[in-house]
Amino acid sequence: MHLLLLSNSTAPGRGYLDHAREEIADFLGGARRLAFVPYAGADHDGYTAQVARALDPLGVEVTGVHTASRPAEVVAAADAVFVGGGNSFRLLAALHRHGLVDAVRARVTAGAGYMGSSAGTNMACPTLRTTNDMPIVQPPTFAALGLVPFQINPHYLDPAPDSSHMGETRAQRIAEFHQENDVPVLGLREGTWLRASDGRLVLGGIEAGAVLFERGSEAEEFRPGAELTRLLTTAAAFDSPAADR
Amino acid sequence: MHLLLLSNSTAPGRGYLDHAREEIADFLGGARRLAFVPYAGADHDGYTAQVARALDPLGVEVTGVHTASRPAEVVAAADAVFVGGGNSFRLLAALHRHGLVDAVRARVTAGAGYMGSSAGTNMACPTLRTTNDMPIVQPPTFAALGLVPFQINPHYLDPAPDSSHMGETRAQRIAEFHQENDVPVLGLREGTWLRASDGRLVLGGIEAGAVLFERGSEAEEFRPGAELTRLLTTAAAFDSPAADR
Repeated sequence: MHLLLLSNSTAPGRGYLDHAREEIADFLGGARRLAFVPYAGADHDGYTAQVARALDPLGVEVTGVHTASRPAEVVAAADAVFVGGGNSFRLLAALHRHGLVDAVRARVTAGAGYMGSSAGTNMACPTLRTTNDMPIVQPPTFAALGLVPFQINPHYLDPAPDSSHMGETRAQRIAEFHQENDVPVLGLREGTWLRASDGRLVLGGIEAGAVLFERGSEAEEFRPGAELTRLLTTAAAFDSPAADR
Repeated sequence: MHLLLLSNSTAPGRGYLDHAREEIADFLGGARRLAFVPYAGADHDGYTAQVARALDPLGVEVTGVHTASRPAEVVAAADAVFVGGGNSFRLLAALHRHGLVDAVRARVTAGAGYMGSSAGTNMACPTLRTTNDMPIVQPPTFAALGLVPFQINPHYLDPAPDSSHMGETRAQRIAEFHQENDVPVLGLREGTWLRASDGRLVLGGIEAGAVLFERGSEAEEFRPGAELTRLLTTAAAFDSPAADR
C-alpha cells in the first residue's frame, strides 16, 4: 500500500498543504485522477475547491466524492484518494453512511495511493480512538479504515510546562488509551508525516519528529528519516482493560 | 432536581475538591450516604478512597458503586450521587453497562442530589458530544443522563493568542458542534460550577465565569451569581446539520 499520512494540512504562516508540497508531489507522482473526501468539513464544495487549487500545479484532476450520487464510484475510478482534515467523528459517520469504508479500503489495497491529513490520517488507523476531536456526531462504530494496524495521534502536542490548566495533557490522554487498549500510538508532531510504500514505513517532515507510546514502555522519540516499518506488523488488541472495570 | 456541576475537581496548588469545599458542604447538607461513581478513572478503589478523604469532614459516608455486585442498588440507597472526572467515554460505557443511566436518573428525579466534576458534569447533559476527552473506548450510545437539557463544556479554555498550534481551539470545536446540533453549550471555565435547585440554575465559582455558545448568536459571557434558569427550558435539537452532508 502507498500511504502519505500528514499530521496537519497547514503550517503557521503558510498556504494549505504548502509545508509538504514536495513530498505530496513525489507521492502523487503519475496520479491523474484524485478522489477528495471532504466530509470532515462542513462546506464540501469550498473545501474541494481549496484542495483543487493546492494540487493544480501537480496536474491532478480533483473530484469531490460528494458531487456524485454514489461517492464510492468516484473512489473506484481514482488513481489516488485524499481524505482531508476537520472533525473526525463527522468524517467517520459519513464514510460509513456513504459506503466509503469498504470502497476506500478496496481501492487502496488494489494500489491507489491514500493521502490523509489530520482527521484523514486518523481514518487510516484501525479506529478513531486517538483523535483529538470533539464527538459532535455519533458514528455507527469507531472502527475506521485500518490501512495501518497501529494508532496515530495527529497534531501531537508536548505538555506545556508552565500551564495551570487542569485538563489532561495529550500524553495523559494516550496513557488513558493504554489503560484500555494494547495498541501502539504514534504521536505525529505538526509538520511531520508518515510515508508507507514497498512495505516500508518512514517518518518525514520537520526535525521535531514523532513520539511512540506503547503500553508498559517509556515513550520513544523518532526523527525524520527514521524507519518505523516494524509498526506495520503490530498485533493490535483493543479493549483489553488494564483495570477492573 | 438538585445539581452541582463542577468544571473541574482540583484547582492548581490545592487539594482534591478543595476549591469548591464550601459549596459542596452546603450542597450535600443533610446527606448521609453518598454513592460515588468512579468509572471515569482506572483505579476505582483508590479513586473512591480519595473522595472519601475529601468528604470526610462533612460526615458523609462514601460508597463506591463498583464495590457492589449491583451498582444500581448503591445508587438507589443513597441520599446523593457523585460522578467523578476522568475519561468520559470510559465513564459513559460503564454507566450503560451497569444499568446506571436509568438508576441515577430515577434517584435524582426522586430528590437525591447529583454532583459531578468534569466528566461527571458531561454526564448530566443530554449527550457526551461536548466532552474534551479522547474516545478511548466506544460506548453503546453518546446519550447520557440528560439531567439538564443543554450541553456543558467543562475545563473551558480560551484561545491562546500567541499559540502556533494548528489544532482547533475549544471555541472552534464548539462551532463544529453547532454545525451539526442546535443546542446551547455552556463553557464552564476551571474554578466555576453550576448549581440547580428549586427550579433555578445559577453560576458559581471564580470570577472568570462561563461563556454561552448558541447557534447563530455571539458568545455571551456570564459572571458568578448569574442566573441561567432559562437554559433549563432549552429545546434541544441534535443532529440537525447546517451543511449538506
